[in-house]
Amino acid sequence: MSGKKDLIVAIDLGGTYFRVMLANKDGRRVAHVRKETRAAAGPEAIEKRLVAAVREVLSGWPAARVAGVGVAAPGPIDPQTGVLHAPPNLPGWNEIPLRDRLQEWLGLPVWAGNDANLAALGEHRFGCGRGVDDLVYLTISTGIGGGIISRGELLLGSHGLAAEAGHIILEPNGPLCGCGQHGCLEALASGPAIGRRAVDAITAGESSTLQVVLGNGAGLTAHQVVDAARAGDRLAGDVLRQAAIYVGMGIATLVHLLDPALVVIGGGVSNAGDLLLDPIRQTVRERTMEAYHGGVTIVPTALGDDVGLWGAIALVMDRVAV
Amino acid sequence: MSGKKDLIVAIDLGGTYFRVMLANKDGRRVAHVRKETRAAAGPEAIEKRLVAAVREVLSGWPAARVAGVGVAAPGPIDPQTGVLHAPPNLPGWNEIPLRDRLQEWLGLPVWAGNDANLAALGEHRFGCGRGVDDLVYLTISTGIGGGIISRGELLLGSHGLAAEAGHIILEPNGPLCGCGQHGCLEALASGPAIGRRAVDAITAGESSTLQVVLGNGAGLTAHQVVDAARAGDRLAGDVLRQAAIYVGMGIATLVHLLDPALVVIGGGVSNAGDLLLDPIRQTVRERTMEAYHGGVTIVPTALGDDVGLWGAIALVMDRVAV
Repeated sequence: MSGKKDLIVAIDLGGTYFRVMLANKDGRRVAHVRKETRAAAGPEAIEKRLVAAVREVLSGWPAARVAGVGVAAPGPIDPQTGVLHAPPNLPGWNEIPLRDRLQEWLGLPVWAGNDANLAALGEHRFGCGRGVDDLVYLTISTGIGGGIISRGELLLGSHGLAAEAGHIILEPNGPLCGCGQHGCLEALASGPAIGRRAVDAITAGESSTLQVVLGNGAGLTAHQVVDAARAGDRLAGDVLRQAAIYVGMGIATLVHLLDPALVVIGGGVSNAGDLLLDPIRQTVRERTMEAYHGGVTIVPTALGDDVGLWGAIALVMDRVAV
Repeated sequence: MSGKKDLIVAIDLGGTYFRVMLANKDGRRVAHVRKETRAAAGPEAIEKRLVAAVREVLSGWPAARVAGVGVAAPGPIDPQTGVLHAPPNLPGWNEIPLRDRLQEWLGLPVWAGNDANLAALGEHRFGCGRGVDDLVYLTISTGIGGGIISRGELLLGSHGLAAEAGHIILEPNGPLCGCGQHGCLEALASGPAIGRRAVDAITAGESSTLQVVLGNGAGLTAHQVVDAARAGDRLAGDVLRQAAIYVGMGIATLVHLLDPALVVIGGGVSNAGDLLLDPIRQTVRERTMEAYHGGVTIVPTALGDDVGLWGAIALVMDRVAV
């Protein structure tokens, strides 16, 4: 027996898929699986499937070499206890002690965190934020989430509920948000908000190539709006630019409050690339005081879909000497 | 010679007055002076007067017992170098190396920081924030400034420019702010904004006991609006409540981003007491997600006008073992 614990397991639990990765302490991926979450089956069924997937990536490796398991989970989650409160993406999950359950089943130490927070940690340790002690990660997807690195560490707040960047208020009388408030960034610029804005504009009589897509009555996704904007559709471009302006205003507030050197943008909608990033950068410049200009860089995620997994790896590395 | 350095000097440099305090390491005030700043005389004249005032509070004490000097200065200021960039409250000051100049004149180590940041530090060490590792201080005065304590330390950001809470964007198309942006919290709820809103309402024909005060043509101060609201004037009450609602929305954004256990409100306008605090608390509750309810307390400053001085004392205590 060597006693050397040089392997780490990461789990990224999403509403549609979950992924499990085995990595070594040098930050290299050793094994990886992706499975459907099947959230409707309830917490216990998913826990069993998570455990089976962890065993799958660990097959062929001695348990004695595993330092621990990191879990990136949808918030709100208590990062101290690893209890999931009531994540909107996992209906029916209510006060689920995920960390303790996995620990018991796997016989390994487990740590858990909010997925957007861990994404910030992932970029900080393994991505474009290496060496940057103050950064913000923003994910624009079904929702808008955030993670804050301050002085080289995750800013968690007094109850682990910090960095909810999707709920920056930008239009006090704006559209209703999933959180129950009005005019949050998430209600103005998330994927569903982008789709809805395009539908509303077309319904109001504006012309767009998206009319054909909308014809089948299923609404529009941000993905469809991005595709149309890329193909030159004017309305789609306008809708995307408006969302980017709101994201830019949200980032302006983050810059004034946190003075980060770097803002990293991830999540599905960030696939729009410069269609999104250019108006974001312009808005941040227009909406921040001159003292900040030149001091903050805005870039797309370097780790893409793996950002949460790498954050979970970093979480374990911070807790255990590997 | 004992070699025991048990005394600390604090300077709070304001646009109208500056104050110098001598305190001991147990947090007791030993001496105190207040002088007019006379900002128009320029940086060199004020520096000399600051030095004279420090010597005044130190008269009768051996220099060998002084651990250092802390300076709370109007931002923006570089907390590493102690250079004041171009504080709006000190016209004509541009890239002034205040820290180095005072150090040279006094022959004592000097540290400097943004006054609102140091106010947060003051409440954390000596005021209502003792033992609270995550708190926000908000000053509502001629401007709106902020300070953030995270994990028991000041959050300064990558260039020392963090916690500019007055420039949270709340109304993208709102009134012009002194910073050049539109719809910042400061433009909506600072002392001058409150006075202006009352004047605008009266000019638009609304009736108020403030009409008489306004008759002399000099505009209205927040102080006058608060007095009228206290005496039962409906318009003044409405104007103050509207400002409080904006402050509450700004705090809601701070709560979502930083998850503080405590928000401390200071500055001249906070003298309005519950007229301001009640609608602030109600708005924060209405505008934050349920997960935060019960987790954050909003209180008036415990240190009043001395909050910056105590922050400057804490700054020195953090740098020198006293």
